[in-house]
Amino acid sequence: MIILGIDPGVATVGFGIIKVAEGKQKLIRYGVITTPAGMRLALRLSQIKTDMSELIKTFRPDAIAVEELFFNTNLKTAIAVAHGRAAVILEGEAHAIPMYEYTPLQVKKAVAGYGHATKKQVMDMVSRLLNMDTVPKPDDAADALAIAICHARTVSSLMNTSGSAKATI
Amino acid sequence: MIILGIDPGVATVGFGIIKVAEGKQKLIRYGVITTPAGMRLALRLSQIKTDMSELIKTFRPDAIAVEELFFNTNLKTAIAVAHGRAAVILEGEAHAIPMYEYTPLQVKKAVAGYGHATKKQVMDMVSRLLNMDTVPKPDDAADALAIAICHARTVSSLMNTSGSAKATI
Repeated sequence: MIILGIDPGVATVGFGIIKVAEGKQKLIRYGVITTPAGMRLALRLSQIKTDMSELIKTFRPDAIAVEELFFNTNLKTAIAVAHGRAAVILEGEAHAIPMYEYTPLQVKKAVAGYGHATKKQVMDMVSRLLNMDTVPKPDDAADALAIAICHARTVSSLMNTSGSAKATI
Repeated sequence: MIILGIDPGVATVGFGIIKVAEGKQKLIRYGVITTPAGMRLALRLSQIKTDMSELIKTFRPDAIAVEELFFNTNLKTAIAVAHGRAAVILEGEAHAIPMYEYTPLQVKKAVAGYGHATKKQVMDMVSRLLNMDTVPKPDDAADALAIAICHARTVSSLMNTSGSAKATI
């Protein structure tokens, strides 16, 4: 199973792609989609849609995991991120890929084992699980990998309890 | 010139279409795009995109005017509305239609003449300007007509001062 993790935004969308086989997560690719600040919002969203389409066509993910928006962030940021998140979701849906959302707390729990893990602990765990020599950069890409791992682990624990993952977006 | 005004959202997207000729605004159509609460977000956004596409193909607007998001609304609502707004914007951009955004204050000023007009005063002005017997319902559709009128009046006042309207989204 190939999982595409997404840390949504408008200026920067982090992505992380992993493959899960025999209970192990393997790194495939990670990076960021970026759009310039001076560009009209409509063009930035279209750019995100196009780049998402490329990622999907290239890596053919079986699932997309997207971070749920913080409800304690500032309103202006939240509105911007929500615009970018919608572009991601629309493109995932256009390719009929099941999508799942996870809160930052769920991601920390699934990756580092407890909800109050520090960012560094989560990042160290990401690089360890994916056999990377260093912590992935930039942060948005590392967060996207953490979200992908969170989905992998959630699905695997559901399978152990004979449950199944239902698309949540 | 045909203007499509949009009051964005996820559950309800208000739309109002007017034609401007010889300085007068004429009503073409108004209504709402609705999506059911139980539906997955991805499907709701796709539905908005599809319905927007239908509206654009049917009425071929020269411009789309979209309400700018309130920054003083609650965060959860703002995030939902921003998702719907992005779906609208992406579809407008896919059809290469210039898009413009206006704050509620700009809409009130342009339609009723002053920024502190009540909602009722704005609505009465909308029905008067468009020669309607009653105030248009539901509210989201009426708001969308007000936004369309706001754009019509903004463009017309720019033309009087030899300016021109630059796409703002």
